[in-house]
Amino acid sequence: MSKKSRGTNAERDLVHKFWGEGWACFRAAGSGSTQFPSPDIIAGNKIRKLAIEVKLTTEEKKYFTSEEINGLEYFSEKFGAEPWVAVKFYRQEWVFLTVEDLQSSGKNFVVTKELSTRRGLSFEDLTNI
Amino acid sequence: MSKKSRGTNAERDLVHKFWGEGWACFRAAGSGSTQFPSPDIIAGNKIRKLAIEVKLTTEEKKYFTSEEINGLEYFSEKFGAEPWVAVKFYRQEWVFLTVEDLQSSGKNFVVTKELSTRRGLSFEDLTNI
Repeated sequence: MSKKSRGTNAERDLVHKFWGEGWACFRAAGSGSTQFPSPDIIAGNKIRKLAIEVKLTTEEKKYFTSEEINGLEYFSEKFGAEPWVAVKFYRQEWVFLTVEDLQSSGKNFVVTKELSTRRGLSFEDLTNI
Repeated sequence: MSKKSRGTNAERDLVHKFWGEGWACFRAAGSGSTQFPSPDIIAGNKIRKLAIEVKLTTEEKKYFTSEEINGLEYFSEKFGAEPWVAVKFYRQEWVFLTVEDLQSSGKNFVVTKELSTRRGLSFEDLTNI
């Protein structure tokens, strides 16, 4: 399976999890390729709206570009949503971090396994805040 | 241009209009083809969220299936959004109607030009309610 397909499958997996908890959730079309910023997935219920940038990795850390994070924050501010990143390390459960919890890495951002253990929320934590 | 491309272009046109008014807006991926209902486009600002089913036509009326409308209402109720339909008649401006304003047509729904003139909102009306 291509890297892109694995990413799409991972996003679909998250979409299923949100619907399973009674939220509505969907992937945004052309995320990363349109002239307007849009996150990978959006989840909402009557009270909360989440804009989520999603990454998979088989490494010990995963980078987010400053463009991705700036776009996520800009979109979230306009749309009225909470900006989150979701990272799935190989054979581990999804972890969710707020943009404020990301570590700076030069001009980009990074989520290490250590950071995800220390500051990340599980799916259950995220949806029950 | 294929019918599908014209539809996609029309959706992109609406996305541009919302961003131009300071809203965030995007097309949902795989609308109509995933197991979970999702509208064609979603627009939001800090206060309102709109779920919109979009149709173009060169005819005098346009049908929406009951599946489309039920899916739009189900999604909107879960996500916490207002359910709307947008119709663009050939060489006319976009008109927006609430689900309650649609006319029943057997088990489906229809928007006629007459109905759109009588009950439809312009883009400016919709975004300034």
